[in-house]
Amino acid sequence: MTRLIDREFLDLCLHDWLGTGDIAARDTVDAVLDLSETLARERFLTHFKAGDAQEPRIGAQGVTVHPEVRAAIAEYAELGLFGAGFAEDLGGHGLPFVVSCASFAWFAAANIATSSYAMLTVANARLIAQFGSPAQVDAFARPQIAGEWLGTMCLSEPQAGSDLGVVRTRAAFDGQDDLGRRYRLVGSKMWISGGEHDVGGNIVHLVLAKVAGADGSLPEGTAGLSLFIVPRVLPDGKRNDVAVAGLNHKMGYRAIPNCLLAFGENAGAVGWLVGEEGQGLRQMFMMMNEARISVGLGAAALACRGYGHALAYAQERLQGRGSDGAPVPIIEHAAVRRMLLAQKALGEGALALCLYAARLVDAHADDAESAALLALLTPVVKTFSSETGLEANAMAIQVHGGYGYTRDFDVEQVWRDNRLNPIHEGTTDIQAIDLLARKLLKDGKGLAVLKARIAATCAAADGFADEVAALQAAWSDVDAALEMLRLRDAALDVATPFLFAFGHAVVGWIWLDLAIVARGKGKRIEAGTAAALRYFIACELPRVRAWLACCTAGGAVLEADAGWM
Amino acid sequence: MTRLIDREFLDLCLHDWLGTGDIAARDTVDAVLDLSETLARERFLTHFKAGDAQEPRIGAQGVTVHPEVRAAIAEYAELGLFGAGFAEDLGGHGLPFVVSCASFAWFAAANIATSSYAMLTVANARLIAQFGSPAQVDAFARPQIAGEWLGTMCLSEPQAGSDLGVVRTRAAFDGQDDLGRRYRLVGSKMWISGGEHDVGGNIVHLVLAKVAGADGSLPEGTAGLSLFIVPRVLPDGKRNDVAVAGLNHKMGYRAIPNCLLAFGENAGAVGWLVGEEGQGLRQMFMMMNEARISVGLGAAALACRGYGHALAYAQERLQGRGSDGAPVPIIEHAAVRRMLLAQKALGEGALALCLYAARLVDAHADDAESAALLALLTPVVKTFSSETGLEANAMAIQVHGGYGYTRDFDVEQVWRDNRLNPIHEGTTDIQAIDLLARKLLKDGKGLAVLKARIAATCAAADGFADEVAALQAAWSDVDAALEMLRLRDAALDVATPFLFAFGHAVVGWIWLDLAIVARGKGKRIEAGTAAALRYFIACELPRVRAWLACCTAGGAVLEADAGWM
Repeated sequence: MTRLIDREFLDLCLHDWLGTGDIAARDTVDAVLDLSETLARERFLTHFKAGDAQEPRIGAQGVTVHPEVRAAIAEYAELGLFGAGFAEDLGGHGLPFVVSCASFAWFAAANIATSSYAMLTVANARLIAQFGSPAQVDAFARPQIAGEWLGTMCLSEPQAGSDLGVVRTRAAFDGQDDLGRRYRLVGSKMWISGGEHDVGGNIVHLVLAKVAGADGSLPEGTAGLSLFIVPRVLPDGKRNDVAVAGLNHKMGYRAIPNCLLAFGENAGAVGWLVGEEGQGLRQMFMMMNEARISVGLGAAALACRGYGHALAYAQERLQGRGSDGAPVPIIEHAAVRRMLLAQKALGEGALALCLYAARLVDAHADDAESAALLALLTPVVKTFSSETGLEANAMAIQVHGGYGYTRDFDVEQVWRDNRLNPIHEGTTDIQAIDLLARKLLKDGKGLAVLKARIAATCAAADGFADEVAALQAAWSDVDAALEMLRLRDAALDVATPFLFAFGHAVVGWIWLDLAIVARGKGKRIEAGTAAALRYFIACELPRVRAWLACCTAGGAVLEADAGWM
Repeated sequence: MTRLIDREFLDLCLHDWLGTGDIAARDTVDAVLDLSETLARERFLTHFKAGDAQEPRIGAQGVTVHPEVRAAIAEYAELGLFGAGFAEDLGGHGLPFVVSCASFAWFAAANIATSSYAMLTVANARLIAQFGSPAQVDAFARPQIAGEWLGTMCLSEPQAGSDLGVVRTRAAFDGQDDLGRRYRLVGSKMWISGGEHDVGGNIVHLVLAKVAGADGSLPEGTAGLSLFIVPRVLPDGKRNDVAVAGLNHKMGYRAIPNCLLAFGENAGAVGWLVGEEGQGLRQMFMMMNEARISVGLGAAALACRGYGHALAYAQERLQGRGSDGAPVPIIEHAAVRRMLLAQKALGEGALALCLYAARLVDAHADDAESAALLALLTPVVKTFSSETGLEANAMAIQVHGGYGYTRDFDVEQVWRDNRLNPIHEGTTDIQAIDLLARKLLKDGKGLAVLKARIAATCAAADGFADEVAALQAAWSDVDAALEMLRLRDAALDVATPFLFAFGHAVVGWIWLDLAIVARGKGKRIEAGTAAALRYFIACELPRVRAWLACCTAGGAVLEADAGWM
């Protein structure tokens, strides 16, 4: 049986490391994880390949997706998983965010494309629950929390990707009703996952648009963005003026359609304003921050799944001979073990990092320290997981040799699916600017919290003196580079290698912290955690210095005219 | 128009750097490159996507491939390109290997899958030309040199991949005829590219098999391997006993079928022994060494192509704003320039390395130094190009953002195609053992030649003092690690990170050498080469120390029981 995620490791993270017991009953958590794994296997994993081979199509009936998606999402709803993390008075189950993330990881590992219907819907409903009026919550959030309707986030346009300031979708005021200030929207939205499909129920689009001034002109920049709820079907049962203008044909992530949506080709799409005008980006960012954690989590889950496949293959496949001349499973070869350890250290390290951040979401409402640390770690969660998750998946293929390159095995698709994760919800370069400019150079609070926690870990790390020394040296290099960048005008030039370095230094700490906690928790988990720590310190942490060297020397290099023309 | 390879850079490499003028007339070389680019564009690039979408099928008529493959290969033959590198008395054109490689790079860049019919056929014919009897050369090499027939190499079996010692295909002596010692072969061969198809002409299989002893047992290990010529159609026009038992469905490289072949399901497949029994692996290695250069070259060509796409997109796509608030092409953003410079430094660096090795093939017949250096560099050529070519292609996708993840653009397929290259013709880990065990620890001749050439470059590098110092420091780290590994029992444990470090140190030297040569050769090429050198030194060379740290500390780590079970 394919191992999706190492349950013992997940339990270590939740119960022993993150103290989930303080915010949820252990048996509840266990039951949710059991149920999640079972459903992920029985309804999501089952069409992992079929959903890739038979991608969404557009026809006279609209967009049709693989039929098993519908059954999977229906059962996900029936078991109450859409509502897992919502308060009970919203129809949810009141589970902590970290537990709903741990649940979600199983579905992402099994079938990241199908799981993303749920991810987007939950993020959408959380935003409406946070910023919408009570009537909006009732009308649009509750049906999503119940899993009866699904949701999207409509930010990008063909000409507006990383730069949302140039969004051109326009909204014109159209009156007031029970659901709030009503507008008519006209414009195109690109890269809309789940933008149209036959999975069932209504689709709630959350759309960023600009309200035109009296002279018809749109406000400049992101400050002019407002957020609108634009349902596919209006409360009166009529179809809203939203049409799918085309599907993007992706390399992976195929069980969910990715659409170009045309709003308002006729009378204008009806949408209700969320909160006030001009608050759209701020509101969307709350959703986006959680979506970034979810993307990181999905990437980490895929890294763990690839590792599971590679490990199983390495234990079975005979090739080469041992010292006695007899055939051996390839896990006996150091080169293969290196790739397995790397996948474990990167994939499970990323998973732990994501769960750590999710635990901060639960804590941050009443804890400024947690909030600052969460803000700092969000771009790291997104980027470390997606970039190194992809490296881990490439190694999963390599362990399989030629077999890994064929569609008879799963690892090639896992790698293709995971390639989206460094792109969507803010590319790696966007995350890097967020980390360096907003989270470090502008405000040092998050870093101070992080450094204090690292110091506490190092102080408790009896028996890991070498690892502590290496970690402290890496952080002292990071500090020195940051001080250098603080003095440089064009520090953002090298924000990306800085983010890579920072992320590895963070995950070095995560592994040290995990290894301390794993002591005495059973031979297998203790040995595995210590081995991953040692591998990370020996073979991953040295990359920190290489990336920082690029930060130090690279700025001037990037200015050069390289004879592009 | 898609830029496949920067012709000015290719010219610099061939004419100014490698002195191809000493072995071929400049106007001949120019004409071959012009013709190659044109044909690559007009017959290979044209079905790049179609050959991926419509992969080979197996049916009652055998294996059918995309119909445009046939036309492409026919024109490749008609223009004499199969024979480019063969002596005139064999029906070839007597071009140096380096020129035939430069020609081939265009086809690999345009359509690596279709180009590999040619690559395999040429390698097959070269082997027969080298080791076959005159009758075998006439019967089997000449039709391939003319491009009338195509060839394969049949090494692997389902249970025998990296370890060819466990090959089970057996050959039984069946008599002597004009073509030599004739055998009957029985067995299965896996991963056979071009093993069966409707591209036209006969197919010449070169098959590794073992001759059973008097008691029916097969000799142990690789010493018992012999090489046989097994044509699909026998000289008397009858079909040989070779059948396709199945196709492998690959993630990329799809225009060429990859087959499981069944030899001898009936009376036994007829094959003629090449040379003597027991010489199979030695003979195959001659072919494999050139095939490894070709694989590296293909990977480098794909890296260059991805770079061309990314550069064109970055110059066109507007996103974000400049200091005056106006929209700018994304090449104005340092983060994008970093990814472009990286692709140039890795992709063109790999291309230069491959051509350097090809030039050594031309030189090595009468030059022991070149032969030793070629032996040393072959695993580096294969691995640096394929591993970093893939990194470069991932960046080409990233530059395109979401568009890069769609099949409307070419970079996703380039990335998928290139993923095969670290696997076939000996995986990265196999190359690493070859480098460390055979080419470095057993015999230091190649390294001595390399170090002398690096020293000569450094001595001539006026104006690049910082780059020279960084390069010398990297090589002193490589030397120290090598000495440490020499003393360690289990040095091969960390052969792979050592190969990565070694490869980067080699390509650092290549860029320095190129930058010296490029001076005064025109503003664009001089600036581009210097920028790539500076980027490589600032951002790539620091990785050497990170990999070496893993070599130093990693061995013990890899021994650990990581709680696999």
